[in-house]
Amino acid sequence: MAVTADVVVAGGGVIGTAIAWRAAAAGLEVVLVDPERGDATSLVAAGMLAPASEALFGEGALLRINLLALARFGSFAAELEEVTGRRAGLRREGTLAVAYDPGDYAALMRLTAFRRSAGLDAEELDSRACRKLESFLTPDVHGGVLFAGDWSVDNRRYAAALREAAAVAGVRMVRDRVTEVLIRDGRARGVAVADGETIGSAQVVVAAGCWSGEVGGLPAGLRDVVRPVKGQLLRLRHPEGMPPVLAHTMRATVRGADVYLVPRADGEVVVGATSEERGPDRTVTAGAVHDLLHDAMSVLPVTSELILAETCAGLRPGTPDNGPVVGGFGAGSGHGGLLLATGHYRNGILMSPVTADAIVACLTGQPPAAEWAPFTPERFVSGADAR
Amino acid sequence: MAVTADVVVAGGGVIGTAIAWRAAAAGLEVVLVDPERGDATSLVAAGMLAPASEALFGEGALLRINLLALARFGSFAAELEEVTGRRAGLRREGTLAVAYDPGDYAALMRLTAFRRSAGLDAEELDSRACRKLESFLTPDVHGGVLFAGDWSVDNRRYAAALREAAAVAGVRMVRDRVTEVLIRDGRARGVAVADGETIGSAQVVVAAGCWSGEVGGLPAGLRDVVRPVKGQLLRLRHPEGMPPVLAHTMRATVRGADVYLVPRADGEVVVGATSEERGPDRTVTAGAVHDLLHDAMSVLPVTSELILAETCAGLRPGTPDNGPVVGGFGAGSGHGGLLLATGHYRNGILMSPVTADAIVACLTGQPPAAEWAPFTPERFVSGADAR
Repeated sequence: MAVTADVVVAGGGVIGTAIAWRAAAAGLEVVLVDPERGDATSLVAAGMLAPASEALFGEGALLRINLLALARFGSFAAELEEVTGRRAGLRREGTLAVAYDPGDYAALMRLTAFRRSAGLDAEELDSRACRKLESFLTPDVHGGVLFAGDWSVDNRRYAAALREAAAVAGVRMVRDRVTEVLIRDGRARGVAVADGETIGSAQVVVAAGCWSGEVGGLPAGLRDVVRPVKGQLLRLRHPEGMPPVLAHTMRATVRGADVYLVPRADGEVVVGATSEERGPDRTVTAGAVHDLLHDAMSVLPVTSELILAETCAGLRPGTPDNGPVVGGFGAGSGHGGLLLATGHYRNGILMSPVTADAIVACLTGQPPAAEWAPFTPERFVSGADAR
Repeated sequence: MAVTADVVVAGGGVIGTAIAWRAAAAGLEVVLVDPERGDATSLVAAGMLAPASEALFGEGALLRINLLALARFGSFAAELEEVTGRRAGLRREGTLAVAYDPGDYAALMRLTAFRRSAGLDAEELDSRACRKLESFLTPDVHGGVLFAGDWSVDNRRYAAALREAAAVAGVRMVRDRVTEVLIRDGRARGVAVADGETIGSAQVVVAAGCWSGEVGGLPAGLRDVVRPVKGQLLRLRHPEGMPPVLAHTMRATVRGADVYLVPRADGEVVVGATSEERGPDRTVTAGAVHDLLHDAMSVLPVTSELILAETCAGLRPGTPDNGPVVGGFGAGSGHGGLLLATGHYRNGILMSPVTADAIVACLTGQPPAAEWAPFTPERFVSGADAR
């Protein structure tokens, strides 16, 4: 084995890169392996940091980890910006959820009641009050709710800053793909990569998003846990000289269809997203682009005047219970030193700081935060599977 | 003057390149000057060769030149393919015009009556007959008309073949922009280009599309004749394994809005086009993409399943009378040896062969076809202007 390290991280999206940075900052020698194909889901995301406006019935454990994630994001981003001198594009303007018709409004009110019962901050607004916050909003909107604590970050600036921070901290970047975690005598000993080489390490973190199951050497129950959930989205831009058309992240339900618009300081507006079970297909389809534009224009008609700068599709790493898969395996599991940090589904950007905290805790023999307990990879491993 | 030639052609779109090729094939020494910025309108076009389904009231002279152009296209393309060994992607399946609602149908019938009175071939079809020709057409379509003589060509393959034919014929390509036609003693003597050099020639052809008026040295009346008319269009592709969803070029009127879909043998479907008076703006806007997709999906719902491969905008060279500007100036005009080949508006691809024929006739002292008489540049020059 030519290369050795304390930790190999497989996957260079925001999850893997945040882990690599924090692990190196904690004094570990880290190798980050990523094929750098430019198709990381992190680069397609919208960057919403919005646990309150996204909380759904029956996902209490997920809400708790998302709230922990949001509480951590500000300090994490501040350190990232300080270390790199780059701006991550964090916006604290809050998220305005609007409902297009009475049926949409009734659904929003049911969700809002639930979110309040979960202790979340949510301010009901009538149509006029919504338009006071967002003057380009159509007067047809029935009403809305302001989630003042839901932020956003520019996912691409954030990802670039993370990569720079990792490099500055001494993380060694290897442009390749991890094909297998090497297990011997019940412990991870390193990884094999696609070009045939191996990298030796005492611990291995698999953070390969929806491709995590393709990495060999995982316990049997984890090979099919993560599936790709396709999301198509659009990046719009203001034409030269047009003032910003949006101040808050806007979520809208338009006759039952959900759409969001996320403004950036540099004039970009991200519009998303579809949610499609199509396997690893990343094509952009005419119908999805039409529907996203239609729904965005329904609530914010001026969207039609924006420049369509980019259309793209990414593959969210979905799991059977919609929860992430973060942590390692118990003593006697036969997989000592193997850690997973994947399955972040719709919340990879938001959860990247707390995921890095949790994994670095595991790497250094500390317990991760209690909120992580429901999301251990062991929930997918039966006793017989583990070996 | 370092470089000299018989003819300088300013502009390397399909018009300028077709002229350069045919002039060189006729034995002239030709220099083709183009900045090669990749923004040629020829590359944005859909390639419809459709004089019948595009004929409008009050444009008889334009119809006559377009019919001449279509009659010439087949032999021209055949020679082009023979010379280069490339396919131009000519399709002879005909054009199906469909009307979405009764109002659209009434308008189509009025146009069809006019087109028949002009001697054009047009077959009325009810909704079922339309669906026999195009099985993916929505049954909601009210009815249609088949224009069996209206073809299409793959504009990008055609443009690439023209460029190769010109090179093979010995045309010298100069990557620069013609800033001025040099006139001395009432005759063109060559051109000045942006890098400061000059190219001497006995004759000069200005074929710079909507930028033609920016070339110095033209008679005063021609400086503002050509204006950019923005057209946005989409290039769709079939997903792998999907059979072709369209056999004919389809034109549709959807509640008063016109849209067309042009299929290619390689699975591309071009959807166009907006027509916007916005000056030289080439941005793609969210509203235009939405409307094109909406109208296309209204008549051919399966469009929603196609891949949105590209969005683009081009600048058609429009003129006050919608007619092209092709030919030179009379004796004593003060502009001997200066020829114009511009202002082709919506029909540049279609008219490129006959425009090349007409300009090569002028260059070699022959009369162009009689159909060109209404389109002489002299129609925009008053006596006082000419000098």
